Amino acid sequence: MEGFYYEQPVPIDFGIGKLKKLPEIIDQFGFEKGLLISTPSMVKNGVAAQIVAASNGKLQEIFSDIQPNPTLKNTDDCADILRSNKYDFAVAIGGGSILDCAKVACFVANTEDSTSIYFYKKKTIDHSGIPLIAIPTTSGTASEITAVSVLTDTDKGIKAPLGSKYLYAKYAIIDPELTYSCPPHVTATSGIDVLAHSLEAFYGKKHQPYTDMAAEKAAKLVFENLLTAYKDPNNIEARVNMSLASVTAGFAFNLTQTAAAHACSYPLTQDFGITHGEACAFTLAAFWRLNSQSDDPYVSTRLQDFSKRCGFEDGNVLADFIDFMKKEMDLCMTLEDAGVTSEELLDNLVANSFAPNMQNNPIEMTPSSLKVFYQSLSKSSAVS
Amino acid sequence: MEGFYYEQPVPIDFGIGKLKKLPEIIDQFGFEKGLLISTPSMVKNGVAAQIVAASNGKLQEIFSDIQPNPTLKNTDDCADILRSNKYDFAVAIGGGSILDCAKVACFVANTEDSTSIYFYKKKTIDHSGIPLIAIPTTSGTASEITAVSVLTDTDKGIKAPLGSKYLYAKYAIIDPELTYSCPPHVTATSGIDVLAHSLEAFYGKKHQPYTDMAAEKAAKLVFENLLTAYKDPNNIEARVNMSLASVTAGFAFNLTQTAAAHACSYPLTQDFGITHGEACAFTLAAFWRLNSQSDDPYVSTRLQDFSKRCGFEDGNVLADFIDFMKKEMDLCMTLEDAGVTSEELLDNLVANSFAPNMQNNPIEMTPSSLKVFYQSLSKSSAVS
Ligand SMILES: [Fe+2]
Ligand SMILES: [Fe+2]
Repeated sequence: MEGFYYEQPVPIDFGIGKLKKLPEIIDQFGFEKGLLISTPSMVKNGVAAQIVAASNGKLQEIFSDIQPNPTLKNTDDCADILRSNKYDFAVAIGGGSILDCAKVACFVANTEDSTSIYFYKKKTIDHSGIPLIAIPTTSGTASEITAVSVLTDTDKGIKAPLGSKYLYAKYAIIDPELTYSCPPHVTATSGIDVLAHSLEAFYGKKHQPYTDMAAEKAAKLVFENLLTAYKDPNNIEARVNMSLASVTAGFAFNLTQTAAAHACSYPLTQDFGITHGEACAFTLAAFWRLNSQSDDPYVSTRLQDFSKRCGFEDGNVLADFIDFMKKEMDLCMTLEDAGVTSEELLDNLVANSFAPNMQNNPIEMTPSSLKVFYQSLSKSSAVS
Repeated sequence: MEGFYYEQPVPIDFGIGKLKKLPEIIDQFGFEKGLLISTPSMVKNGVAAQIVAASNGKLQEIFSDIQPNPTLKNTDDCADILRSNKYDFAVAIGGGSILDCAKVACFVANTEDSTSIYFYKKKTIDHSGIPLIAIPTTSGTASEITAVSVLTDTDKGIKAPLGSKYLYAKYAIIDPELTYSCPPHVTATSGIDVLAHSLEAFYGKKHQPYTDMAAEKAAKLVFENLLTAYKDPNNIEARVNMSLASVTAGFAFNLTQTAAAHACSYPLTQDFGITHGEACAFTLAAFWRLNSQSDDPYVSTRLQDFSKRCGFEDGNVLADFIDFMKKEMDLCMTLEDAGVTSEELLDNLVANSFAPNMQNNPIEMTPSSLKVFYQSLSKSSAVS
């Protein structure tokens, strides 16, 4: 076994109804004056106001002007409020976008800079920000326990991750109840994103014993619960288990990063408008199939054994089950479904699929091998 | 699933040869002036001096006056040195006793009190101590990543745990190479202690999904590696896996605490002179047997399924394998082996087995049921 580094500094308070503990946790930390960072919809439906009301005067303002793909302007605006009103903590409640924005804003607020300085790596993130309590409302990104935020510079059209151990939240409250109202399509896409985090953490080159352990547990939870959570949104056990799966996958991919399926997802999202989880799922089964048949016995044995421990006959059967889940949840299956309807579009897709995490795949992908790989996802000969 | 709390704030740097990274890690933290806390034997064999020499002048003194069961005087002496020489960090390298002593000394040094104030709970441990880098030389206690130290007040003859999140080390370096020279009997007793941590974390009442996950991984590693590490001390893979097992079990029992087998170990150690791990192992197989046949189907199903996932036919076969390992490693098997040779001694043993962690056992034990339980470990009728 090679050496490895492991960290997971965010304390996790998990359970149905745990949101009610928020005021107590604010008090335990001795925080005095905080900003609630949330979504326009939680402002509209009154939940944000309820959280403020329950905070014994500690939460004094709400910020909710955040795009679905949070922008540098969003984090700058949020940081300005934190800084100018001298807030000593923040609470973020929402999906991955809200948490990603809040993590960076809390850091930037403790500097005199704008976000772009760090986004473009002119300075490194080298000290703590304003402490953040993170509360996810979807089971997907695990942003509440990871060291990464994904931001977009809308001026330049650049979307990129920002990572640092100083971006970790101070505390994560994971209350599965907050996901009960998640509509089926969001359950599907965020849930299959969790599976991508698990499987990519497992086959990724940076895997190590503890990320393997978490990846396996998370994948099993998704295989056993996602279709139920999708088809029966009121099934509490499935919802709780998907919340658990999301955090557990976070333990893993926070340290391993993701790999080829995520790399391919970026152009599928940016150029073809497919949401993140669905875009990751697009190639996930095929990459599992490919990697589990690697010529390197270390890789293929690991994936075949993992597949068996998850209850499948072999790697192909696990991959078949991913395809089955995708079909059941109406996710796009073929290049044509995704809108990749010409060889030119396919060539662009291939060219834009080589983000750095492509290098984490255990089998080296080249533009030509990736094109053949994508073509296997075509239902006709139109693009092949 | 019930709600749960999970934390594991200590970063883990694991791997053969990682001790060499110590100077780099000291620099990364920006530490300036530190104390090395170690064992008399590491002073004698020159390893302590080597570590000091490699530290670029950062480690300036060695403290090694620590008993095998560290005393309040040991932690006070160590804290005095840290305080009076204004050290801004410490490095502890040694077995569980050294790490336990160092964790408390680093906290006490940041107060104006003596250890007994906290040992007797006149004050709570409510702020950080001097940062500590912890480096274990045995695979057993996992003290390097837990929030607990066990200390002894020799004046009053009281041995008790001291726990607080402020006792966590700042960083753990786990270098399996340091365990290579561990003699077989120590490998056996510390290794079987790891199994006790795993199984007790699993069946203990405070178990939760993440402690279950770690407990299972740790138990599997012990089942697959301990006998090899014992019989073939130069087997590197077995040594590495036992180092990993120790830390992994620490993830679990740090949060669940231990249960009945550990409760029974205290009088076996204190009154019958059996070392910690061997004393825990004394009842471990029998408690696994008992709990896996619990009338509560939640408990028995969990233990039976766990046994199967570990590769055993059922709970009894897992317990048989513990007994087999104990025999192979020459650990004491019967009341008579342990020196409990009269009914009076047995009654004393029973009476002294009710430390608070006895309450964590899923089956409630009473003095009379525990006596019958112990009697099942008698080879003759002498004490039954
Ligand atoms: Fe993702
Ligand atoms: Fe122990």
